[in-house]
Amino acid sequence: MKVSLNKIMTKGKALYLAYDQGLEHGPESDFNDKNVDPLYILDIAKKGKYNGIVFHKGIAEKYNKEIRKSKVPLILKLNGKTNLVTGEPKSAVISNVKEAIKLGAKAVGFTIYIGSKYEEEIIEEFEGVQREAHAKGLPVIAWIYPRGKKITNDVSRENMVYAARTGLEVGADIAKVKYGGNAEDLAWAVKSAGRCKIVIAGGVKKSEKEFLNQVRDIMDSGASGLAIGRNIWQSKAPLELTKKIRKIV
Amino acid sequence: MKVSLNKIMTKGKALYLAYDQGLEHGPESDFNDKNVDPLYILDIAKKGKYNGIVFHKGIAEKYNKEIRKSKVPLILKLNGKTNLVTGEPKSAVISNVKEAIKLGAKAVGFTIYIGSKYEEEIIEEFEGVQREAHAKGLPVIAWIYPRGKKITNDVSRENMVYAARTGLEVGADIAKVKYGGNAEDLAWAVKSAGRCKIVIAGGVKKSEKEFLNQVRDIMDSGASGLAIGRNIWQSKAPLELTKKIRKIV
Amino acid sequence: MKVSLNKIMTKGKALYLAYDQGLEHGPESDFNDKNVDPLYILDIAKKGKYNGIVFHKGIAEKYNKEIRKSKVPLILKLNGKTNLVTGEPKSAVISNVKEAIKLGAKAVGFTIYIGSKYEEEIIEEFEGVQREAHAKGLPVIAWIYPRGKKITNDVSRENMVYAARTGLEVGADIAKVKYGGNAEDLAWAVKSAGRCKIVIAGGVKKSEKEFLNQVRDIMDSGASGLAIGRNIWQSKAPLELTKKIRKIV
Amino acid sequence: MKVSLNKIMTKGKALYLAYDQGLEHGPESDFNDKNVDPLYILDIAKKGKYNGIVFHKGIAEKYNKEIRKSKVPLILKLNGKTNLVTGEPKSAVISNVKEAIKLGAKAVGFTIYIGSKYEEEIIEEFEGVQREAHAKGLPVIAWIYPRGKKITNDVSRENMVYAARTGLEVGADIAKVKYGGNAEDLAWAVKSAGRCKIVIAGGVKKSEKEFLNQVRDIMDSGASGLAIGRNIWQSKAPLELTKKIRKIV
Amino acid sequence: MKVSLNKIMTKGKALYLAYDQGLEHGPESDFNDKNVDPLYILDIAKKGKYNGIVFHKGIAEKYNKEIRKSKVPLILKLNGKTNLVTGEPKSAVISNVKEAIKLGAKAVGFTIYIGSKYEEEIIEEFEGVQREAHAKGLPVIAWIYPRGKKITNDVSRENMVYAARTGLEVGADIAKVKYGGNAEDLAWAVKSAGRCKIVIAGGVKKSEKEFLNQVRDIMDSGASGLAIGRNIWQSKAPLELTKKIRKIV
Repeated sequence: MKVSLNKIMTKGKALYLAYDQGLEHGPESDFNDKNVDPLYILDIAKKGKYNGIVFHKGIAEKYNKEIRKSKVPLILKLNGKTNLVTGEPKSAVISNVKEAIKLGAKAVGFTIYIGSKYEEEIIEEFEGVQREAHAKGLPVIAWIYPRGKKITNDVSRENMVYAARTGLEVGADIAKVKYGGNAEDLAWAVKSAGRCKIVIAGGVKKSEKEFLNQVRDIMDSGASGLAIGRNIWQSKAPLELTKKIRKIV
Repeated sequence: MKVSLNKIMTKGKALYLAYDQGLEHGPESDFNDKNVDPLYILDIAKKGKYNGIVFHKGIAEKYNKEIRKSKVPLILKLNGKTNLVTGEPKSAVISNVKEAIKLGAKAVGFTIYIGSKYEEEIIEEFEGVQREAHAKGLPVIAWIYPRGKKITNDVSRENMVYAARTGLEVGADIAKVKYGGNAEDLAWAVKSAGRCKIVIAGGVKKSEKEFLNQVRDIMDSGASGLAIGRNIWQSKAPLELTKKIRKIV
Repeated sequence: MKVSLNKIMTKGKALYLAYDQGLEHGPESDFNDKNVDPLYILDIAKKGKYNGIVFHKGIAEKYNKEIRKSKVPLILKLNGKTNLVTGEPKSAVISNVKEAIKLGAKAVGFTIYIGSKYEEEIIEEFEGVQREAHAKGLPVIAWIYPRGKKITNDVSRENMVYAARTGLEVGADIAKVKYGGNAEDLAWAVKSAGRCKIVIAGGVKKSEKEFLNQVRDIMDSGASGLAIGRNIWQSKAPLELTKKIRKIV
Repeated sequence: MKVSLNKIMTKGKALYLAYDQGLEHGPESDFNDKNVDPLYILDIAKKGKYNGIVFHKGIAEKYNKEIRKSKVPLILKLNGKTNLVTGEPKSAVISNVKEAIKLGAKAVGFTIYIGSKYEEEIIEEFEGVQREAHAKGLPVIAWIYPRGKKITNDVSRENMVYAARTGLEVGADIAKVKYGGNAEDLAWAVKSAGRCKIVIAGGVKKSEKEFLNQVRDIMDSGASGLAIGRNIWQSKAPLELTKKIRKIV
Repeated sequence: MKVSLNKIMTKGKALYLAYDQGLEHGPESDFNDKNVDPLYILDIAKKGKYNGIVFHKGIAEKYNKEIRKSKVPLILKLNGKTNLVTGEPKSAVISNVKEAIKLGAKAVGFTIYIGSKYEEEIIEEFEGVQREAHAKGLPVIAWIYPRGKKITNDVSRENMVYAARTGLEVGADIAKVKYGGNAEDLAWAVKSAGRCKIVIAGGVKKSEKEFLNQVRDIMDSGASGLAIGRNIWQSKAPLELTKKIRKIV
């Protein structure tokens, strides 16, 4: 089945609100009294007209009524892990395409750690997901992060473009990669990804000015958009910041 | 299917009698001539009007007639392990949802060790259980314990709230976590868990006064209840103690 | 389906002839020109009126006609291993319930090494067997041996009662455990096992007198019987010895 | 079903254009602004009348219309890996025979690392592919590379002929092996492979003269052809070079 | 289904021609210009009236017409490995019973390394094969070799008889074991194997006289025959040697 990105993009551009940090980082490091609540995040996504909101299965289930009502496209992240585990990374698969469709998701997300000693298994799991999702016409977003013994700088030019290209080679519709700060490198990554779109992960909280400058560079480099989390919902004025970002995008 | 907690909660509060220690700790460390007998435990659960009794499959099968007759809701714990194994923890899956239903269970329990090097596999096994249980309308209680190389204090604020939040993210209906003694931390954990309910594990035997004080703190912090084992059935007057706890809860 | 032990017990007591040593220990250490032959063993079982004879699949197949003709109940041991492997123990699954039924087995046997680093997988394999066997009304006998890094004495009070209790918790009908020589410990193990019956492994060859004294202690402690191998078929007068044991049992 | 090589060979000879380097090596080391684009490669394959073009699934999907239109036979490579992983090699299976057929592939490719500590799993995965492909009449090309602790020179006579023979033993129709530069060794490899055809991997970029000399030696040794990548699409005049090679082949 | 050995034995005796060395040892160490060709081997088997010829799947497929025409019973070896892998041995499963039947095999072969740290998995794989083969009436020949950390001499009396007995215990119809040179040990091995037949592996090339003496000892010890490879097809007069062996057998 032909996979259309229309439901999670606006004129080929996209802004996603990421909220998988509850499992990936834990509440203590990332959340406060407000943003610990999925409904607060959903409200930002709705009012900020995000092209998608990223939840793990548990939240997608227990807040499903509100998510559907908000009309914010649900991007169900199908795998995840805590940061309490040592050693090379591999996320647990915690949901599947069938469940995603039942929960009303408009796309699925999946983390791939290239360079991890589990790379092979991760890519194989991804492939199962990609196959089933495409059979149902559901877009697949791959979070692709270089990690492992050989990786000293996961946002070096070499590693960033490798991540982007891997997205194309394994059949992702969108690859979410980390940005190292060099716009030229990103342009090369975008080119390397061919028909696979590139969106950039927001990363740790920065000053607004610094962040907006970066957004500008990112979009100038040909990327299709951003998936932002902490920079938005840790902000005191998430909707105003969103407006500024949206303008650039 | 909508999952209702009515059969294992009273007005949103719950008191469970845990009896998985035969496999988890062995008879020598936890049992005496009386409490080694599942029927003695079942009797306490019945007379103490517990909202559920936790058994592994073997006991649930061999004492099934008595369990059904008692009307105490059966919570079938689907995985477990001995404490004879060294290395990072992973419980064996010893039963499944289908079997739980056949045995008359009103909920299933499953232990997740976050931080264990087996975290990924454990969460994947949990997900299979969660999916099938919810398809049948059966509530899922996750025992979530931080363990592994990185974990030095499994009841630190950071780890306790991480355990609670993991319950929400992976789709548990109730997360059973250990309490470190700080009521404020627990309140933050309860908040972090959102629509996933928190019940507290009883832990090692304490003096009655100490224990009741703790129960009060726990309930004040917003938790939904407790799952107690040794503090009850190692007590000389389990029913009186139960009454006192029930009053607080 | 209700599992009846009638076909492998006489008034709740049992005497089994174990002959899995060909795979577990090898012919050189345990066999001589006579007892290397399965038919010699079968003959003892028949004339000695044993409640069951324990064979692995290969023998059960190739001598099936003779086994059926003997009317000795066949206990098919479903897993096993050589003693040539180093490291922590795990037996290979070499047959299944379906095959057991086809071969005319009246019960199945399965070895569980608690404390082994493979404990989790072993118990999970056991559960599959237990489930299927009970679905067909076939009794399940678990050989439960504490092994692994933490185990220094596999017949200590603590370990023996843990083995017995594990039999109950995981749903075995009969647990075969090793006896450390202390009758009081065994009584506590029998109690810990609740409705799971305890039979004792014969172990290495002893003098007849010593052995019969032990049998007496075992039966006095409440055990349901014995599974004997070498003490019988390495004896010069296996049938006379059997008679003496049977009298005690 | 009888497997015919007609669609990917011309009179028993073949020239394939390999383009799996995006995943295997990453864009930074192998690609430039032109050859990073799959359509540029496809154009060379079409105009150069290659007997097949090697793509991974992602490219085969996203550029499928253009591939079909070009009439260049698609060889779908079913497994692959990044070069970021340390330790012994094993490729992730990223597609399957069913998918290959749906994408219009005329053959499938699969990498086998003999000597890797994962050799056993790799060969087992290969077998599944081989079986299914042959059931559908699809030829199977095995990339066979000696790798691992014992391998110091992967193109030594001993290792090259072992790779070729492995192709025959495991049922590949064509084995792609690396050439060490000794024509006599290659002749022995071709003989060792019996009815399994041998094609030679192009390897790192060489001077044109050097490369053409090698091609001559290769064809003289009885090989069925070459699978070339970098030597062609890193060349400034890929079509002229192709013509020269084609002449020799 | 009753398994008959008639198609691969003559009056209970057998002579097999082994040719799995292409995968197990590689061409460089075992083959020359003649015996590298499967058709040369098949010709010896036919003219020498062997009771079976041992091929891996690739050869059995690509030379199937000639094999069928020769009327030599095909023994399809279902697993194998290169000798390039370090560490304890485990063969890859490269074919299955269904395929064996389709290829016209009259028996299947399977290598079991007892003592290997993979023993458990190997035996489990063997069991699947044994079960399916017997369901179709196909005889199963197990190559049983003691290997691993504990094994210092794989043809010691203790290890040879253990190998033979394992054949019986796991349900092989014929066990192929290595002979250490002591006829008495072999007689004990044959006895230990009970109704499982013993055939002896030929091993490395010896002088004809030495070899024929050994054959005599082997047959005198009660073995059912030999599976010979290098001693035959590395010989200058393979058919004359065969005749001499056949006479003894």
